[in-house]
Amino acid sequence: MGRASKREDIAQAAFRQFHARGFNATGINDITQAAGVPKGSFYNHFSSKEESAVEALNRYAATLRFDMLAASDRPPLERLRAHFEFLSKDTVENGFVRGCLVGNFGAEVADHNEEIRAAVNRGFGRWGEGIQHVLVEAQEAGDLDGELDAEATALFILSAWEGTLIAARAGKSAAPVDAFFRTVFDVVLG
Amino acid sequence: MGRASKREDIAQAAFRQFHARGFNATGINDITQAAGVPKGSFYNHFSSKEESAVEALNRYAATLRFDMLAASDRPPLERLRAHFEFLSKDTVENGFVRGCLVGNFGAEVADHNEEIRAAVNRGFGRWGEGIQHVLVEAQEAGDLDGELDAEATALFILSAWEGTLIAARAGKSAAPVDAFFRTVFDVVLG
Repeated sequence: MGRASKREDIAQAAFRQFHARGFNATGINDITQAAGVPKGSFYNHFSSKEESAVEALNRYAATLRFDMLAASDRPPLERLRAHFEFLSKDTVENGFVRGCLVGNFGAEVADHNEEIRAAVNRGFGRWGEGIQHVLVEAQEAGDLDGELDAEATALFILSAWEGTLIAARAGKSAAPVDAFFRTVFDVVLG
Repeated sequence: MGRASKREDIAQAAFRQFHARGFNATGINDITQAAGVPKGSFYNHFSSKEESAVEALNRYAATLRFDMLAASDRPPLERLRAHFEFLSKDTVENGFVRGCLVGNFGAEVADHNEEIRAAVNRGFGRWGEGIQHVLVEAQEAGDLDGELDAEATALFILSAWEGTLIAARAGKSAAPVDAFFRTVFDVVLG
């Protein structure tokens, strides 16, 4: 196995372990075992568990399909709904586990590690901007009240989504996901 | 120090350590050190770290002032706002750390421990019912659209609050808290 592919295997295993177990419950050993590499090889590729966590966040963000927000194939609010339907499908089909890695690291690690806090914040920032852009498009198209503060509403919708995943995991139930769709699309943006 | 007061010191220390550090980053040693008791004494009072975490959740829930929701001293929606203002004051004044223990355990532990998941779910359930009751009161008083689904809206507001705390911690910023108040009170319930 080449050096580049070994790094890729470790990075991918770290992402999956962090998403399944959380930051503190994941040991370097869990990551190297899952990657099928010797424990010592982790530090040939990452200077710390924190560094691999920041890379895991970037890998996770790439799965969130921000491109669904930016595409112009459908009316803006339909794209926003499709984006969250895509995300909710994942959580419902997986039995309400894992949640969102950005929110998980935000809840577990942001207070304790500046590097991870900043990466979580960048993730939220990029995501919020994508949502805000869709809302502004919807306002320009006349599909959404022009008085609505698009920046605050985008931030709120993102926060609401993060909390929705936590409530869904706690209850092993789609009720919080249903409440999210009904309130965001029929009330906030309705 | 008597047996009862030693148990109280350990339970209180566990609550504070779990809230500050999270579940997996808190060792029994952190708890007993913070309580000023020998490490071995933990197991005289709790069968496991998980058991002390469930008690910590109950202690935390008692600080959330659900009584502010149930009181009839003010119009229902004013009480709801005062409840979240009380909670947001805590997070803003503390420099956006710790967040909500219910949400933190939901994000970090619910997937991995059935006892803690059930306790988190009970916490959300009780809180959501308190909010729902306020919304129904507001509907009966004619202060809120009677068509609004009070149960789904209450669940949504609670989820949104949990995510708001995570975003505020990640950004070390009150912007998500401001967005919560503006959207919940001016748009969802406005």
